[in-house]
Amino acid sequence: MANSRWTAAAETPPVSLRRRGPVLERAILEAALEQLSTVGWSGLTMEGVAAGAQTGKAAVYRRWPSKEDLVADALQAGLPVLDEAADHGSIREDLFQLCRQVRDAMYSRSGFAFRSVLYECDSSTAERFHGVIVRRVVEPANQLYREVVRRGVTRGDVRADAIGELVFDVIPGLMMYRSKVCGSEWPDEDIAEMIDQIMVPLLRPGTG
Amino acid sequence: MANSRWTAAAETPPVSLRRRGPVLERAILEAALEQLSTVGWSGLTMEGVAAGAQTGKAAVYRRWPSKEDLVADALQAGLPVLDEAADHGSIREDLFQLCRQVRDAMYSRSGFAFRSVLYECDSSTAERFHGVIVRRVVEPANQLYREVVRRGVTRGDVRADAIGELVFDVIPGLMMYRSKVCGSEWPDEDIAEMIDQIMVPLLRPGTG
Repeated sequence: MANSRWTAAAETPPVSLRRRGPVLERAILEAALEQLSTVGWSGLTMEGVAAGAQTGKAAVYRRWPSKEDLVADALQAGLPVLDEAADHGSIREDLFQLCRQVRDAMYSRSGFAFRSVLYECDSSTAERFHGVIVRRVVEPANQLYREVVRRGVTRGDVRADAIGELVFDVIPGLMMYRSKVCGSEWPDEDIAEMIDQIMVPLLRPGTG
Repeated sequence: MANSRWTAAAETPPVSLRRRGPVLERAILEAALEQLSTVGWSGLTMEGVAAGAQTGKAAVYRRWPSKEDLVADALQAGLPVLDEAADHGSIREDLFQLCRQVRDAMYSRSGFAFRSVLYECDSSTAERFHGVIVRRVVEPANQLYREVVRRGVTRGDVRADAIGELVFDVIPGLMMYRSKVCGSEWPDEDIAEMIDQIMVPLLRPGTG
C-alpha cells in the first residue's frame, strides 16, 4: 500500500528536512494523525507515516515499535491539554468556558480520529485507545468540573450539598448522548442552553 | 459452519414440531437471538438459526430474505415494550420505576446482542440496528419521561418551567455515560441515587 516513490524519497531526506528529537517526533505524530483521518486505522502503515513526515521508516520504528504504539501517542499528542479552568466569577461562566474546552477536545482531530478508529481495530487495541481518551480528556475534565463546582460553593452560587459523584457526570453524559444520538457537535449556544436549563437549576443554592 | 446432522434433521421436523405462523416465527427469532449471543453476528447463519429453531432453512428464508432482516426483527422482538409509565403518586417514584423499565430494556438479551453486534457488522447494517433501538427504546422512553414530568407539573412536585428539551436527555445521558465509562449496569440503588441527587433537585418547584 506504501507508495515506493515516496518511500524511496523518504529514506534519503533532503538536507533541509533533517530534523531531530522533538521536531521530527512531532512531524511523525502529525503524519500519523493525518493518515488516520484519510486512510483510517486499516490503511495506516509505518511506511505511509514515514512518507507523510518526509522521513525514513527506520526513524519511525526507532521510536514506536508498532503501529498501535504510534497511534496511541498520536491521539494523545493531538488532544488539547485540559489542565485549567479559569475563574470567571460565576458558576454559569466557569462551566460554560470549561465545556467549550471539553467540546474542543472531543472535536479535535484526535477526537475525530479516535471515534473512527474504534470501529476498525480489534477490541484490545480499542481499549488501549479508549484509555488514552479517559486519561487525557475524561479524567482531567472530571477534576476540573469538581474544581469549578467547589469554587462555586465557596463563592456562594452553588449549594453546598451539590457535590455528589453523579453531578459531575451530568455534563459528560449529555455531551456524549446528544453527540451520539442527535449528532450534535455542541456549538456554543447549545452549551449555554445546557448550563442554563440543567446545571444552573441543579446547582443553585436555597433548594437543598 | 452449520452442523449437517442438525440441518438434515431440521429439514424434516418431527410432527410434534410442526408449528405455523406466530409460534414458528417466535421460535426462529428466539434462535436468532441465541445465535447472536453465542456465535455473534459473523458466526450467525440462516442454517444455524433454522437448526436452533428446529425447522428448515426454507421456513427462515420465506420470512426473512437476509440475515440482516432476520437480526433486525430478532433484536426488536427481544426488547421489552416501553409503552406505559404508571402513576405512583410522586415524581420520585414515577421516575424510579420508569428508569428501571429502561434499564431492563438496555440489559435485555436484545440490548446485549445489539451492543456486541455493532462492532462486528458494517456501518450501514449497524445504522439499521441502531434505528431499531432508537424506535423501540430511545424514542418511547423519551415520550414516557415527558409524560411523567408533565404529570409532576400538574401534581405540583415539578416546577412548571422544567420542560425544556435537554431535561429529558439527562437520564438517558447519565445511563449511557456510566454504562460506557464505568461499566455500570444500573442496579436499583444507583437508579435511586440518580433520581435523588440529580432529578429531584433539578425538577423541584420553588427554584425557578
